[in-house]
Amino acid sequence: MGQLDLQAYNVRTDLALEAKEMAEQSGGVIPGIHSERQEEDGIVITSLHVQDEQGAAAIGKMQGHYVTLEVPGLRTQDTELQNRVATMFAKHFETFLERIGVGKTARVLIVGLGNWNVTPDALGPIVVENVMVTRHFFELMPDQVAPGYRAVSAIAPGVLGITGIESSDIIQGIAERTKPDVIIAIDALASKAVERVNTTIQIADTGIHPGSGIGNKRKGLTKEILGIPVIAIGVPTVVYASTIVNNTLELMRQHIETNKGDSNQVFGIMNQLEEQERLQLVKEVLHPLGHDLLVTPKEIDQFIEDIANIIASGLNASLHDAVDTDNVAAYTH
Amino acid sequence: MGQLDLQAYNVRTDLALEAKEMAEQSGGVIPGIHSERQEEDGIVITSLHVQDEQGAAAIGKMQGHYVTLEVPGLRTQDTELQNRVATMFAKHFETFLERIGVGKTARVLIVGLGNWNVTPDALGPIVVENVMVTRHFFELMPDQVAPGYRAVSAIAPGVLGITGIESSDIIQGIAERTKPDVIIAIDALASKAVERVNTTIQIADTGIHPGSGIGNKRKGLTKEILGIPVIAIGVPTVVYASTIVNNTLELMRQHIETNKGDSNQVFGIMNQLEEQERLQLVKEVLHPLGHDLLVTPKEIDQFIEDIANIIASGLNASLHDAVDTDNVAAYTH
Amino acid sequence: MGQLDLQAYNVRTDLALEAKEMAEQSGGVIPGIHSERQEEDGIVITSLHVQDEQGAAAIGKMQGHYVTLEVPGLRTQDTELQNRVATMFAKHFETFLERIGVGKTARVLIVGLGNWNVTPDALGPIVVENVMVTRHFFELMPDQVAPGYRAVSAIAPGVLGITGIESSDIIQGIAERTKPDVIIAIDALASKAVERVNTTIQIADTGIHPGSGIGNKRKGLTKEILGIPVIAIGVPTVVYASTIVNNTLELMRQHIETNKGDSNQVFGIMNQLEEQERLQLVKEVLHPLGHDLLVTPKEIDQFIEDIANIIASGLNASLHDAVDTDNVAAYTH
Amino acid sequence: MGQLDLQAYNVRTDLALEAKEMAEQSGGVIPGIHSERQEEDGIVITSLHVQDEQGAAAIGKMQGHYVTLEVPGLRTQDTELQNRVATMFAKHFETFLERIGVGKTARVLIVGLGNWNVTPDALGPIVVENVMVTRHFFELMPDQVAPGYRAVSAIAPGVLGITGIESSDIIQGIAERTKPDVIIAIDALASKAVERVNTTIQIADTGIHPGSGIGNKRKGLTKEILGIPVIAIGVPTVVYASTIVNNTLELMRQHIETNKGDSNQVFGIMNQLEEQERLQLVKEVLHPLGHDLLVTPKEIDQFIEDIANIIASGLNASLHDAVDTDNVAAYTH
Repeated sequence: MGQLDLQAYNVRTDLALEAKEMAEQSGGVIPGIHSERQEEDGIVITSLHVQDEQGAAAIGKMQGHYVTLEVPGLRTQDTELQNRVATMFAKHFETFLERIGVGKTARVLIVGLGNWNVTPDALGPIVVENVMVTRHFFELMPDQVAPGYRAVSAIAPGVLGITGIESSDIIQGIAERTKPDVIIAIDALASKAVERVNTTIQIADTGIHPGSGIGNKRKGLTKEILGIPVIAIGVPTVVYASTIVNNTLELMRQHIETNKGDSNQVFGIMNQLEEQERLQLVKEVLHPLGHDLLVTPKEIDQFIEDIANIIASGLNASLHDAVDTDNVAAYTH
Repeated sequence: MGQLDLQAYNVRTDLALEAKEMAEQSGGVIPGIHSERQEEDGIVITSLHVQDEQGAAAIGKMQGHYVTLEVPGLRTQDTELQNRVATMFAKHFETFLERIGVGKTARVLIVGLGNWNVTPDALGPIVVENVMVTRHFFELMPDQVAPGYRAVSAIAPGVLGITGIESSDIIQGIAERTKPDVIIAIDALASKAVERVNTTIQIADTGIHPGSGIGNKRKGLTKEILGIPVIAIGVPTVVYASTIVNNTLELMRQHIETNKGDSNQVFGIMNQLEEQERLQLVKEVLHPLGHDLLVTPKEIDQFIEDIANIIASGLNASLHDAVDTDNVAAYTH
Repeated sequence: MGQLDLQAYNVRTDLALEAKEMAEQSGGVIPGIHSERQEEDGIVITSLHVQDEQGAAAIGKMQGHYVTLEVPGLRTQDTELQNRVATMFAKHFETFLERIGVGKTARVLIVGLGNWNVTPDALGPIVVENVMVTRHFFELMPDQVAPGYRAVSAIAPGVLGITGIESSDIIQGIAERTKPDVIIAIDALASKAVERVNTTIQIADTGIHPGSGIGNKRKGLTKEILGIPVIAIGVPTVVYASTIVNNTLELMRQHIETNKGDSNQVFGIMNQLEEQERLQLVKEVLHPLGHDLLVTPKEIDQFIEDIANIIASGLNASLHDAVDTDNVAAYTH
Repeated sequence: MGQLDLQAYNVRTDLALEAKEMAEQSGGVIPGIHSERQEEDGIVITSLHVQDEQGAAAIGKMQGHYVTLEVPGLRTQDTELQNRVATMFAKHFETFLERIGVGKTARVLIVGLGNWNVTPDALGPIVVENVMVTRHFFELMPDQVAPGYRAVSAIAPGVLGITGIESSDIIQGIAERTKPDVIIAIDALASKAVERVNTTIQIADTGIHPGSGIGNKRKGLTKEILGIPVIAIGVPTVVYASTIVNNTLELMRQHIETNKGDSNQVFGIMNQLEEQERLQLVKEVLHPLGHDLLVTPKEIDQFIEDIANIIASGLNASLHDAVDTDNVAAYTH
C-alpha cells in the first residue's frame, strides 16, 4: 500500500494510558504493567506503574509512575466541577509526590513549556502566571516565611522560534544556578483520542522526552540530564485529523455491530485491518495533501484557561500545606 | 439507518462554491448558475452568479453574486504571498462593488461579526480594529477631507452571550442613526472541506443569513431587513470532525481507485453510499457521543491575524482611491 | 499674567465631590447642595444632592444625586478589601436605584465607554466583559427565566477613532431598538486630586455630558437625548501633570504652616494666589511645552482590572436579587 | 527641614545624560567626561564618554560609553519619523558595537527585562517578541545559514514576583549554557525629566546595575558578573510625581524671569533653594502621603509598542548585515 515514513506509522501518543490501551487491544494483559482505576464524582483516576523493561517496551513508555485524571465533563464549563477536579488533582498530586519520595520541604521549580502565542500550546505558560511563587521570600527573608510553605519558583522558557535556545538548555542553566530539588514541567500534548482532548490530565515521574508534547522538542527534561527528578504534567489539547478519522471508523464499526449489522459487508476489507494498518492508510492519504492537520476544538481559549486554573490551583494546594486542599481555587484568579 | 435530525443531514456550508460543487456531484451542470474561474499566481478566483430561483434552489444559496479567492499557500505564512492576496482581494472587491452598483462615494459601515474571545471566531473584530475609519472626519470637518476618501465607519457588535442583544439588532440600530449606503459584514465560517479552512475568502452580495457563520445567529443582516445592500465577506476557520472524516473517506476511495484497487472490495457498502448518506452515517455515530466537535487548526492565532490583515488592507485599498492598490499592506499594521 | 484659554483655566473635574470642595474653599457653605458623609471600614461614602439651579451653578455640576465611595486602600491590592468595596458598592447602588425610582424589573442597558486599547481608558469595556447579561434569555425563553433576575444587556461601543461614530449615536441607535428602561454608563475620569486616582467611584443620575471622561466626547448620554434615565458610574484613572503640581504646592504650603514656618516667606507671592490662579500659572508654563500630560500610575493595568471587577460584581448583585449581596465577587471572574 | 531618607534625596536617574546635566548645573565643566552632540532631522544624538574615576564620581555613573537618542516628536505617532529613528538607531548601534570591540560574528543574547503584565515595564519583553532569533539555525544546521547573519538568541526572564528568581540569576544560568559573546539588555527606566519619557533611548556599555530600571533589581547584569560585555538599552517610561513638580517649579522660575518678573519675590525662599533641596522638600511632603507615585502618560500602550518596534527593527538591522539598514521596519511587525 505504498511507502509511509515510519514515524507516521507509529501512532504517537503522549498518554501512557492510551499507549497501554493500544497495546492491550493487540495483546491482552501486559506483564510489567500494574494499573488501578477508581471513579469518583465523574472523575476517573488511573494509576499506572510501568515496572520494568518488559512493560516499558510493551507500551513504548518509560518505566515509572503515571496517574491520569479523566473528566469528560470538563468541556462543559461547569465551575463547580472544575473546583472538584482541582481539589482531586491536588490530593493525587500530593500522594504522587510522597510516593516518589519528594519531601515536604523539597524546593520546586515549575516549568511551563510551550508557546504563549499559540493558544492550544499556551497551557504551561498560563499555569506559570497563576502559581504562587515563594522562592524569593526564602532567599531574601528566610526568617519571615510562615510555616506551611516551601520554596517554589516558576519559569516559562518560551519556544525555540522565539528564543533561539532549546527550552531544556534554558531550564538546565536556571536549575544549575538555583538548585531546586525537583522540577515540575507542564506541557500541552497531542492525544490519539478526540474525547481526551481538554478532558484529561496526566502526571508522570518520567520527565519530558524528546518529541513529546505539541512543539518539536529536540532535547528532553529528565533526571538523567538534570540530576533531579522531573515530574511531567500533561494535558492533550490537540489531535491529528487522521486520529479523528481513525477513531471514527472504529466507532462506526462498533455502531454497525451494536445494531446487528454485518460490519464486514459494510466496510469490506477496511473492517479487517488492524487499527494501526487502518491509521497508516488514513495517514497515507491525508499526509501528502497537507490535510493531516493538528486540530483543536473551537472553544480552545476557554478550555486552556479553565484547565490552567485547575492545575495552578492544584499545585498551590499540594505544594504548600498552608494552602487548603478543600478550597484551592481561591488562591488563583 | 436510524433517525437523525434533518439539520445534521444537510451538509451545511457557508460557501456557495462548495454548495455548487456538491450539487454538481449529484447532478452535473446546474441551470441558473453561471460561474467563471481564473487562476493567477497560485490564487484561484471563482465568480459565481446565482441567476434565478431555480439556481438558488439547486444549490441552496440565495440569488446573487459570489466571488471566491482560494489560496492554498496561505497557511504557509508567506508574507509576500499575503501581500499579493491583499492586492488581488482589493482589485476584485473594487470590481464587485462596481458590478453591484455601489458608487465611489457610497458611505460604508463595516461590521465585524463574531466573538473576540474565541480565536477562530475573532476574524470580524480584528478586521474592524485594522480598517481605516473616516466617517468622523466627514461629519466633523467635511471641508478638510482630502479627495480620494469616502466615509467609512466600523463596529464589532459582539455576540449574544456578551451583550444580551442580537448583533443584527445592534447593527440595525446603528444603521438607522448613521445612515450608511452599504454594509460590509465580515464573519468567520464553517467549511465542509478541510483544505478551505483559512485559505479561502468569499465575497457575496447576499448579506448574512440566520444560521450562517460560526455562532448561532438567529436574525440575519440583509437588504430586506436593513433597506441597504449588505456585502458579506467570509472565511472558513472551522470544520466539523464529521466533515474531516467524510472528506477523508472520499479521498481514500479515490486513492484506492487511482492505485487500481477495487474500492468496492476495500470499502464494502460504504463505497456505494452517496456522499450525503455517508456523512449522515458519520454524524449519526459521532453526534450522540459529543465527538462531532467544531475544530480549527492548531496555528489558528497566526492564521486569523494574517487573514484579518489581508482583508483590512484590501478593504482600505478598494474603498479609498487615495490608498494605493499596489501596496495595500502598508496601511494596516 | 498672560493669556490662557478659558477651558484650561477652569479646573475641570468629573467628580461632583471635588467640585463642591473647590467651591467651598472659596466660599464656605453652598446653598442648594445637601451632602451627607459616612465612614465604614475604611470606606468613605458621600451622598451629594444638587437640589436646584443655584447649587448647580455654584459647583458647576448638573442637578441630581451623586454618591461617592472613597477607598484610599484600594491601591494596595488587598483582595478582602476589594470584596468589601464590591459589597458596599452593591448596597449603595441598589439604594440609589430605588431613590431615583428605578424598579426591580426595569430593563437595564449597561454601557462601557472608553477605549480598550488604552489601559487607563479601558474601565468601561472591561466591566462590560464581566457583567452578567440576561436580556437574551428574557427575549428567547421568557417562561424559563428564574425569579430574581431582570433583563440586562451590555455594550462597549468603542471610541470615535476606532468606529468613526460617536458612542452616543451608537447607544442611541441600540436603545431605540432594544428599549431599555434605564442606562448605566461606566467611564474612566480625570481627577483633580492625585489621591483619588483609582481609589474613588462616583455614581450619578445625571448621565454623561459632553467633555466629561478621558476621551473627547462631543455628544452626551443623557435623559434629554435618550428619553430614559442615564446613571453614570465613573472612576478617576488619570490626572493632569498640572494637577499634580498644584496639589503639591498646596500640600507644601500646609506642610510649612504645620511646621510653624512662614509660608509667605517661603513661597513669596505664590502663597497669596488663589488655588485657581496658581493652577493657571502652572498650566501657562506647562502647556506650551507639551508637558501638561495626562498621566496614570505605573500599576494601572492591575488597578483597572481590580476596579472593573468591583463594579461588575457590584452591578450583578444590585441588579439581580438572586445574586447575593454578601458574596458578589463569586459571580465574576 | 526634617529627616528624609538619603535615597530619596539623591535624584535617581538612569540616564547618564541627565546625570551629567545635573552635575553641570552645580559645577560647570566636568573633568573626565567627554561628550559630543549632533542633531539630524529632529533627532539629537549625544555621545558621552565617562573616561575615568573622577568623571564617574562626578556624575554618579559608571565609566564607559553612553549614546543617547532624543526624539521629542516620538510621542506624536508619526510612522515616518519612527522609521527614521529605527534607521538612525541601527546606524549608531552598529557604530557602538564596533567601538567597544564587538565583532561582526560575535554571538548575541538579547535580554528583555521587565514585567509583561505592567504596560510601562513591558518594553524589554515586547522587544524580545519582535527581534529575529537565529541561534537555533546556527546550532541545528550551521551549513545552511545564509551569509550576513550572526547567532542571536533572546529571552524575557520575567520579574521576581512571577518567577521567584532574580532575573540576573536566570540570565547567568542561560549564558553559562549557551555561551554568547555579548549580552544586550533592554529595560524600561525612570526619568527625572517629563519630556524624556518615551522620547529617549540610551545605549550604554556599562551593563545593568542594581537599583536601575523600573523594577527592584537586587543584582546587576554586568561584565564583572557574567564575564562578557553587557550593553544596556534603556528608555524612560515613567517619572516620579515629585520629579514633575520639581521640573515645573524650575520652569516656572524661568518663565517668570523670562517675563522680567522677580522670581525671588514670586517664589520667596523657594527660589533660593538648590534644585536638590527643592526636590527634597517636595519628596518630604509627598512621600508620607503615598502621593509620590511613579506615573506614565495615558497613551503608554501605544508608546511602548512604537518604541519596542523601533528598537527591535534597529537591532535586527545592526546585528545582521543581511538586514538592510535603510528599511529596517519591514523586518518586524
